[in-house]
Amino acid sequence: MTQKIIIFDSTLRDGAQAEGISFSVKDKIKIVEALDRLGVDYIEAGNPGSNPKDLEFFEKMKHTSLQHSKLTAFGSTRRRDSSVHEDKNVQSLLQAETSAVAIFGKSWDFHVTNIIHATLEENLDMIRETIAFFKEKGKEVIFDAEHFFDGYKANPEYALLALQAAVDGGADCLVLCETNGGAFPSEVYEITKKVVETFSVPIGIHAHNDGGMAVANSIMAVEAGAIHVQGTYIGFGERCGNANLSTIIPNLQLKQGLFCIPEEQMTKVTSTARYIAEVANIHLDDKEPYVGRSAFTHKAGMHIDGVNKASHSFEHVHPNSVGNERRLLMSEVAGRSTILSKIQKISPTVTKEDPVVQEIMDRVKELEHQGYQFEGAESTFELIVRKQLGKYKPFFEIEYFKTIGEHPAQNSEFGSSAMIKINVDGQEEISAAEGDGPVNALDKALRRALEVFYPELKEIYLTDYKVRVLDTKAATAAKVRVLIESSDGHDFWTTVGVSTDIIEASLTALVDSIEYKLLKNIERKIQVYL
Amino acid sequence: MTQKIIIFDSTLRDGAQAEGISFSVKDKIKIVEALDRLGVDYIEAGNPGSNPKDLEFFEKMKHTSLQHSKLTAFGSTRRRDSSVHEDKNVQSLLQAETSAVAIFGKSWDFHVTNIIHATLEENLDMIRETIAFFKEKGKEVIFDAEHFFDGYKANPEYALLALQAAVDGGADCLVLCETNGGAFPSEVYEITKKVVETFSVPIGIHAHNDGGMAVANSIMAVEAGAIHVQGTYIGFGERCGNANLSTIIPNLQLKQGLFCIPEEQMTKVTSTARYIAEVANIHLDDKEPYVGRSAFTHKAGMHIDGVNKASHSFEHVHPNSVGNERRLLMSEVAGRSTILSKIQKISPTVTKEDPVVQEIMDRVKELEHQGYQFEGAESTFELIVRKQLGKYKPFFEIEYFKTIGEHPAQNSEFGSSAMIKINVDGQEEISAAEGDGPVNALDKALRRALEVFYPELKEIYLTDYKVRVLDTKAATAAKVRVLIESSDGHDFWTTVGVSTDIIEASLTALVDSIEYKLLKNIERKIQVYL
Repeated sequence: MTQKIIIFDSTLRDGAQAEGISFSVKDKIKIVEALDRLGVDYIEAGNPGSNPKDLEFFEKMKHTSLQHSKLTAFGSTRRRDSSVHEDKNVQSLLQAETSAVAIFGKSWDFHVTNIIHATLEENLDMIRETIAFFKEKGKEVIFDAEHFFDGYKANPEYALLALQAAVDGGADCLVLCETNGGAFPSEVYEITKKVVETFSVPIGIHAHNDGGMAVANSIMAVEAGAIHVQGTYIGFGERCGNANLSTIIPNLQLKQGLFCIPEEQMTKVTSTARYIAEVANIHLDDKEPYVGRSAFTHKAGMHIDGVNKASHSFEHVHPNSVGNERRLLMSEVAGRSTILSKIQKISPTVTKEDPVVQEIMDRVKELEHQGYQFEGAESTFELIVRKQLGKYKPFFEIEYFKTIGEHPAQNSEFGSSAMIKINVDGQEEISAAEGDGPVNALDKALRRALEVFYPELKEIYLTDYKVRVLDTKAATAAKVRVLIESSDGHDFWTTVGVSTDIIEASLTALVDSIEYKLLKNIERKIQVYL
Repeated sequence: MTQKIIIFDSTLRDGAQAEGISFSVKDKIKIVEALDRLGVDYIEAGNPGSNPKDLEFFEKMKHTSLQHSKLTAFGSTRRRDSSVHEDKNVQSLLQAETSAVAIFGKSWDFHVTNIIHATLEENLDMIRETIAFFKEKGKEVIFDAEHFFDGYKANPEYALLALQAAVDGGADCLVLCETNGGAFPSEVYEITKKVVETFSVPIGIHAHNDGGMAVANSIMAVEAGAIHVQGTYIGFGERCGNANLSTIIPNLQLKQGLFCIPEEQMTKVTSTARYIAEVANIHLDDKEPYVGRSAFTHKAGMHIDGVNKASHSFEHVHPNSVGNERRLLMSEVAGRSTILSKIQKISPTVTKEDPVVQEIMDRVKELEHQGYQFEGAESTFELIVRKQLGKYKPFFEIEYFKTIGEHPAQNSEFGSSAMIKINVDGQEEISAAEGDGPVNALDKALRRALEVFYPELKEIYLTDYKVRVLDTKAATAAKVRVLIESSDGHDFWTTVGVSTDIIEASLTALVDSIEYKLLKNIERKIQVYL
């Protein structure tokens, strides 16, 4: 039977310690859902003891059940000077009410004596008692041995005693943390092997990337017998980041024949990475292994010639195996089958040979070149397909708009105002509104004008609005991509717009959102009628 | 004596195969000079046979002598059907007139028969004859065995025969190329060890990052006896990039005690990386090991406490050892001591008990509550501290501004325009500009007005512009946080603004950026005067 490797994702905990990352509770829920769909085993989602926002998140999650993943809360061993029953962090961790908890404790003697100022014996008590406490409460307990490798190199006996204390407390898994991220693959292999030989409890690895070797160190630990791998899905985390799971999972599953996530989910590896980047509002590095935009991009003529003759001549795996696609920069040829399957969702009778497929591909490519991204904007994509299929008729036209911003604001609490003129089947309507900034004013004015014709639009409200600056070097003249999520109380849908002008980009996404809603309403009416 | 590891940089050759990279001849010369100053051993600067621009570059370099590095031209073995004397690529390579050449040839039997359609014997002749030709011309010849690891796994005898052909031709170094980037550290170690035991010629490694392990694979090859390491200085290259030399050099030199570059140049590792990124016009990943902006950045309270007690508690090397710096982020989790140490940078005499410390903390907390985040915006933070310390006087005031957006645009290629009136010591100036969107128009108008009083502002340009929507539920009425990074060609600084109106948020960050620059200029003048 294939060996199972437990995948433990810490995007929402260790990942949140990265510079520039700040998750809202809603962001966290979105990421939990994405990781659960992908099928990771554990989702470490926060530290309720150190962060009241995380406590709120766990409260919200109590009535949500996940398909595949175990939600895990993270916290420290009890403090030196308080019992487990009094310790605030321990008690907060309990309040999170997750079935699994990850407890970190010190395993480097220097840290015990010089950083937390405990005796070596006290620290072992803290580890054992904290774990035993959670075991008594019926939890699954994962022990994170902080600085294990540095600790082992300084004092191997003590590092192993820390693990033994965790075992004595009843820990279900011992995770060796390469906290400072500077260890070398060969030493990670040697030390992990030693630990695997010493304990019968499952062993895990938690690596950081300060030496640029977090992925390799994780792989070497697995080769030495570790069966639990911690990381963050797209690698962000404290300093240089954590081991990147979107690299480790395909490395292990596609090449080592180990079982990390359900086989049918492997083609979601790329889209999950892009989705998480979008929610975290960070740019996914184009050259990210497996999932980056350039991961299977060929520029050199000889390489293009090679992959055209045989893909494995310049590709270590096939791009489809992780749901990514090959891009040839010279001769633009790209993933037909991916797009076809999306088209068939809307119009099942379309076949691969149908010329409309090429037309849609050309249009999508053109828009992507402009900076559009359809990963998080399925509704805009659906509208594009409908337009190309001739299954679309505009509900309104914008004849013109004007926005005015001023500071200080004159005669109003708002500094911005907008007016807009629209046309619905030859009938014109002009309207104006004030708002918080030009986009908000224009949004209000547009809705006011449209509601004259489509009163059902009163139900729509925007639930999310994200702005991403593309090509940041162009600074205030840079292109922006605006992502809008809308809802009518039942459904949610997302649309996208791109422009060098944030007002235009927002308006494009807004118009798509409204058109999508009107289209859905008509389809519903037709269905009821039939 | 310390073992010397030869560092061979291919930023200008393999790096140029990365998506989005396009060097001018002038760019290439700048990068050659930077790498020479740093002290790498070889600079592979182009492929004159495949690229006429590269030939022009080598022409220009003929009369330039480098201090430390050997300039190297790269090219293929002769074609199957032409002799070395007729082969165009071989002759172009000769024309480059470099003392060293890197010749790549096939070592994977599948590539020989299925991609270049030669017989296995013909390929060995091509390797041997091409190398012998350059040796006769008095060149140092480095042989790059393309796909060596895949080749060895498929047909070890043939892969070794390819190396033997290179040795027979007189090659000075045999470089094992992990061309597809998918090999594992343990197999790179085993195979390299075998080669090192088989040949007496120096062995090199050339790794790609498709499995996220290029650095580790290079390190493992060195552990197996390779003494020549190829890579690109900041890791860019075809697909997922090449082995990153700015990670490998400190890994080997600071931790393995091997000698890569002159000891006194180690503190230039970071500035060289940033300079090359600037010339290549790419964003250096913040979390890049050793050289990234976040590489020694701490956010979690416990980590900040730890590094304050002992730097090695959460840092694998000291940031100064590579010329980088430690940054302690101002975040919800940062404590009093972090803020105090930042205040003391500006005003060293302030003590913990000073009431101004509490005032500053209150102000920071209040702004954070509004949505400010100072972890990426040290300059705004510094201005706040100065304001509270009374060490600040505004350089200008904005009396009012107006922005107008319109679609379709009237009489201009731009859809937005702005006017602004400022006041400097009682003197007013009004100016206007058009732009890509209202923010860009306002940015231009403000600079135009200010340059009347402060011509030195002409040096400032924005290098990054980021927008983050906070509280996304409020949709188009949501608060936005705008982060701006500016530069004057020497320094970089970041500022932040928050508002429900993107125009105001941008303007706040812009004003801080300009004030910070003016403040620094005055301080510099005072220093010169004293």
